[in-house]
Amino acid sequence: MNQLLENILENCRKYTKDGKLASYIPELQKTDPEKLGICVVTDENALYTAGDSDIRFTMQSAIKPIILLLALMDRGEEEVRKLVGVESTGKPFDAFNYSDQALKREHINPMINAGAIALCTLIDGETYDEKFDRLLKLVQKLANNPKMEIDENVYQSEKRTGSKNRALAYMLQAYGLIHDQVEQVLDCYFKACSVLASSVDLAKIALVFAKKGKLSSGEQVFSKEYAKYINAVLMTCGMYDGSGEFALNVGVPAKSGVGGGIMAIVPNRMGIGIYSPALDSKGNSCAGIKSLELLSKELDLSIF
Amino acid sequence: MNQLLENILENCRKYTKDGKLASYIPELQKTDPEKLGICVVTDENALYTAGDSDIRFTMQSAIKPIILLLALMDRGEEEVRKLVGVESTGKPFDAFNYSDQALKREHINPMINAGAIALCTLIDGETYDEKFDRLLKLVQKLANNPKMEIDENVYQSEKRTGSKNRALAYMLQAYGLIHDQVEQVLDCYFKACSVLASSVDLAKIALVFAKKGKLSSGEQVFSKEYAKYINAVLMTCGMYDGSGEFALNVGVPAKSGVGGGIMAIVPNRMGIGIYSPALDSKGNSCAGIKSLELLSKELDLSIF
Amino acid sequence: MNQLLENILENCRKYTKDGKLASYIPELQKTDPEKLGICVVTDENALYTAGDSDIRFTMQSAIKPIILLLALMDRGEEEVRKLVGVESTGKPFDAFNYSDQALKREHINPMINAGAIALCTLIDGETYDEKFDRLLKLVQKLANNPKMEIDENVYQSEKRTGSKNRALAYMLQAYGLIHDQVEQVLDCYFKACSVLASSVDLAKIALVFAKKGKLSSGEQVFSKEYAKYINAVLMTCGMYDGSGEFALNVGVPAKSGVGGGIMAIVPNRMGIGIYSPALDSKGNSCAGIKSLELLSKELDLSIF
Amino acid sequence: MNQLLENILENCRKYTKDGKLASYIPELQKTDPEKLGICVVTDENALYTAGDSDIRFTMQSAIKPIILLLALMDRGEEEVRKLVGVESTGKPFDAFNYSDQALKREHINPMINAGAIALCTLIDGETYDEKFDRLLKLVQKLANNPKMEIDENVYQSEKRTGSKNRALAYMLQAYGLIHDQVEQVLDCYFKACSVLASSVDLAKIALVFAKKGKLSSGEQVFSKEYAKYINAVLMTCGMYDGSGEFALNVGVPAKSGVGGGIMAIVPNRMGIGIYSPALDSKGNSCAGIKSLELLSKELDLSIF
Repeated sequence: MNQLLENILENCRKYTKDGKLASYIPELQKTDPEKLGICVVTDENALYTAGDSDIRFTMQSAIKPIILLLALMDRGEEEVRKLVGVESTGKPFDAFNYSDQALKREHINPMINAGAIALCTLIDGETYDEKFDRLLKLVQKLANNPKMEIDENVYQSEKRTGSKNRALAYMLQAYGLIHDQVEQVLDCYFKACSVLASSVDLAKIALVFAKKGKLSSGEQVFSKEYAKYINAVLMTCGMYDGSGEFALNVGVPAKSGVGGGIMAIVPNRMGIGIYSPALDSKGNSCAGIKSLELLSKELDLSIF
Repeated sequence: MNQLLENILENCRKYTKDGKLASYIPELQKTDPEKLGICVVTDENALYTAGDSDIRFTMQSAIKPIILLLALMDRGEEEVRKLVGVESTGKPFDAFNYSDQALKREHINPMINAGAIALCTLIDGETYDEKFDRLLKLVQKLANNPKMEIDENVYQSEKRTGSKNRALAYMLQAYGLIHDQVEQVLDCYFKACSVLASSVDLAKIALVFAKKGKLSSGEQVFSKEYAKYINAVLMTCGMYDGSGEFALNVGVPAKSGVGGGIMAIVPNRMGIGIYSPALDSKGNSCAGIKSLELLSKELDLSIF
Repeated sequence: MNQLLENILENCRKYTKDGKLASYIPELQKTDPEKLGICVVTDENALYTAGDSDIRFTMQSAIKPIILLLALMDRGEEEVRKLVGVESTGKPFDAFNYSDQALKREHINPMINAGAIALCTLIDGETYDEKFDRLLKLVQKLANNPKMEIDENVYQSEKRTGSKNRALAYMLQAYGLIHDQVEQVLDCYFKACSVLASSVDLAKIALVFAKKGKLSSGEQVFSKEYAKYINAVLMTCGMYDGSGEFALNVGVPAKSGVGGGIMAIVPNRMGIGIYSPALDSKGNSCAGIKSLELLSKELDLSIF
Repeated sequence: MNQLLENILENCRKYTKDGKLASYIPELQKTDPEKLGICVVTDENALYTAGDSDIRFTMQSAIKPIILLLALMDRGEEEVRKLVGVESTGKPFDAFNYSDQALKREHINPMINAGAIALCTLIDGETYDEKFDRLLKLVQKLANNPKMEIDENVYQSEKRTGSKNRALAYMLQAYGLIHDQVEQVLDCYFKACSVLASSVDLAKIALVFAKKGKLSSGEQVFSKEYAKYINAVLMTCGMYDGSGEFALNVGVPAKSGVGGGIMAIVPNRMGIGIYSPALDSKGNSCAGIKSLELLSKELDLSIF
C-alpha cells in the first residue's frame, strides 16, 4: 500500500501546476503550491502515508461536516433540517442562493458557506467561544489528536478580509435564519475554518465517518444515522459544483477545503486524507482529486 | 421478504393521498392515483412482489438512465461529456438552466429534460425511428421482456402538448447543442418517455445496473465503468431537486418518472421497481419514496 | 439642418467600425456594415436627410412599437396589460425572463422578443396572414408609404433559423400566454420583423408617435393615450439593456432593431430615423446611437 | 390649483388602505398609515399645498438622487459611471443583482440600495461624518430649509436592524466596489435615509431638478448635464420595478422612499412632493402614486 501511495503521488504531482492557491484569504497565499501528501487509514487501523502527509494546513471547509455533526448531536435532525436543507445547490461554495425575492432555507446546504455559518448557531454553548471549544474538542476526539489547534494568522486574516462571508451572514440574519450577533457567529466560523490538520488527521476523522461513528477505541461517538446523513450530504454536495464529477470519477463521500485538504470516506472500509494546496476553479485541490481518482481505480473504492 | 413488502405497502398506502397525478400530460390524468406496487429482484435473481406490481405505466424520466447508457455505448464517455455535464442542477426537472446570456452544456444534466433530449441525438441510427428502435431493444433486453412497447395515447398526448419540452429543445438548438430537426429529436424523446413498464420491469432493469452491466444470463451488456457513471449521476441528480433528501433517507441511486415509477439500484445487491402515480411537488412518487425509505431502513440498503 | 446632419454623420461614421452585423440571422450578414443614413422630420413636416437615408433595411425590433400599437387599438389597454407587463427587464432582448419555477407575464415587456411574440396573438384577424396584413397596412399608413413590403429572403432566413424565438414562443405556450399554433404566431412575427423601411420611413413613423397619433394629414390614427403608453415603454425599455444609458445620453423614447435601424421620437417636435447596421453587444446600432447623442446635444432634444 | 389638490387627495385617500407601512425598519411602523399630503411648486415659485403637507417623514430612498448628485458634483460623471451603471435593474430595491459568479458594477443602479451605498464612498470629506454633513447641507440648500435634520430614532433603528443593507455593503466590499470600512459607509447611508423632510421640502428639491440645477434665487447649484443625468436615471429606475408602470401612468421622473414620500420632477414646469406612508409591494406609496396619476392627467404632466 505504501508503494501504491508513492506511485500515485508521483503520477499526480504534475497536477499541482494546474491550480492556484486560494486568493481570497491572503494568509493562504504563503503556502508552497507544490506540496502533496496523502494518508490512508483502514478499518483495521492500519495507517499508510506518502509525501507531505505531516504538513499541517487549515481545514477550511473540511470542517463543515463536523459542524453539521455537532449541530446534529446537540439539536437533533429535526432542528437542523428546519434551519438548512440538504439539496445540492449546483452552485459555487460562496454563492448567494438567493432569488430576487427571498432566501429560502431549503436552498441552503450545510456544505456551502451560508449553511455552515447558520449551523454554527445550533452548536450548544453559552458563548461563541464555548461553542467553538466544543467543536474543537470534537475534532480532536475524531482525529484522536488532542494537539489540534487553530492557525492564529489564518484566523486573523480571514476575520479581517472575510467580506463575502460577512455578506452571507448578514443575509442570513436579514431573513431570520440566524438571530445571534453576526460578528460572534462569524468569529466561531472563522476559527473553525482555521483549525490546523494534517492529512493523517483528516484520514482518521474520515475513518470515523466510514465506520459510522465508531472510534478505533470502540466508542460510538455519534449515531449511525448521523454518519449516513453526513455521508449522503457529502456525496451530493461535498465538492461544491464539482460533486457530480467527483461522484463519477471517485465515487465516495468527500469534503474539500480551500486550504488544500480533502477528506474522503470509503464507507466501512477506510478514511483518506490528502493535501495539496493548488486549487481548481471550483476551490478543490487539483492534485488531490487526481490522486483520489487513481486510488479509487486501483482499490475499486467507488460505492456505485 | 414478500411479507415485508406487503407490510411496507400497507404502511405507505396512505401517502398516495399526499400527491397529485402529473398534470402536464393530459393522458396521465386518467390513472388511478391510489395504485401502489413494488418488486424486488436480488442478485441471485429471486423476485419478490407486492401490491399492483403488474400494472404497466409509462416510464417517463425513468428511461433517462437508459438514454444515457445507449449514448455512452454508442459514442463513449468523452463525446457524451462534451455534450452534457454531470453536476446536479439543484433545480426542477424541466428548468431552463440558462443564465441571462447563455446556455452552458456543463449546466445540463442527463437526468433533467434538457440533457436527455440532447442525448437522444447521440444515439446511433440513420433515422430517429431507428434510434428509438435501438433504445427500445436495449430496454427490452435489460428488462428481459421483449414485449415492452410504447403507450400510443400517452405518446400522442405528449407530442401534442409538450410545449415546455419544445421550448427546451429549440433552446438547445439555438445554442448549438443539437443540430438535428427539433421535431424529430422530440419525437424520439416522447416515444422514449412513453415506453410502458411494470414495477417488475423496472426492478429487473435496476438489477442490471446494480450488477454493473451483467445480465442474469451472465452476459456483460455494458462496461462496469458505464454502470458506475450512471449510478453516480443517479445518486446526485436522479430525483431532481429531491436528490439530496433521497440520498439521506434511502441512500441508493434511483430514478423517478412522472408516470409514477421509481427504479432504485442497490449496488451489487438488488434492483427495485416501484409504482404509485401520485406525485409530490418535485415530480417524484409520494408513496414510492416513502416505501423506499422504509425498505432501506429494514434491509439496511443505504450505501453510506 | 441638412448641414448639421451631414456634419454629424461625418463625425460618427468612424463608429461603424466599433460594431458587428447581427450574426444570428444569416441573411443580415450580407449587408455593408459601413452604411450610415439619417432622416429628421419636424412637426411642420419639414424633412431633412443625410447619408444613406434611402437604403432600405428590415425593421426587426423597430416594428415592436407598432405591434404594441395595433394590439392596443384592437383590444384596448386592459387586455394588453393582462398579457404582458411594462417593466424594464434589465436583460438582453432575447432573454428568457424566467425564474426556476415560472414565467410571469409581468416580467415580459412588449419591447423584448417574448412580449412582441405574445402581442401578435392580440392583433385582430381571422388568420395570421390577415393579422400580418393589418399590421403592414398600419405601418404603411404611419409611414405614408404604401410600397412598404417584406424582404422575402430575410423572412425566410429568420423562419429557418429562429430557434431562440421558437424556444421563447413554446415557453409562452407552455405557460398559457399564447394559445394559437406557435408556428403561425411566429410566421406573423418573422414577417413583421422583415418589413423593409428606410430611415425616411422610420422618421415619419416616429413623427406620428411624437405628435401623439396625429398624421400630417391631420387624421388622428390612434388616441393620445396610446402614444404616451408606447413612448413611455420605449423610454424605459426600447433600447433593451442599453435603455438607461440612452435615456441619459439622448433622452428621448426610441426603438432599435438588429437590422441597424433606430426610430427616435422627440415628443411634439420631431421624428428621427437612422440606419447603420453595425451593432454593439446589446444589439443597438453603434453609429446610430452616437449620431443621436450628437444630434440631441446640438438640438437640445432631451426631454429631461 | 389648491382646490384641484384638495379634490385629488379626497379621491385618493381611500388608497391609503391598499398599502402597508414599511416593516423592515421597526421605527417606521409607528406612523399613521392614513396620512396624505401634497405640495406643488411651479417654476415661478408659486407654492400650493393640500392635506398633511407639513408632516415630516424620513426621506429614505428619496435621498438617493441627491447622493448621486453630490457624487457627480464631487467626482464628475466619469468616476461615478466607473462605480455604478445606469441600467434599470428590473428588480426590487434591495435585490442582490448578483449572478452566481460575480457582482458587476454595470448591474448596479444609483437608485437601488447597493448603488446608493456605493456612491456614499464618492462624496468628498475627510471622515464619513464630514461626508454626511456635506450631503445634509446640499439637501438643505436644495430645499431652501436650513432646519432639515435627521430623525435620530429612525437612524438608530436602521443602524440596529439593517442586516440586508449590511449584506449588500459587504458584498460590494467583497467585489472591490467599496474600500472604506463598511460600518462607516453604512452609517453615512443610514443617516442620509433618516433625513426628515415634508412634502414641501420634497417639492422644492424636485423643482431644482426640474429647473436643471437653478435655485429660485437664480443660483446655478449644479450643471444642466447633471440634472438631465439624474432625471433620466429617475425615469428608468426611480420607482424600482414599478418604474415602467409609473412612466406610463404619470410620465415624469420621480423617486419614492419607504418613508412614504415621493418626489416628482416635471421638467421645466414644477416640482411635486407627496407623502402617504402606506406602501405597495414594491415599496412605493399607494395613495401617493394614485394622486400623481390623477394630477398628471389633470395638468397633462407626462413628458411623453
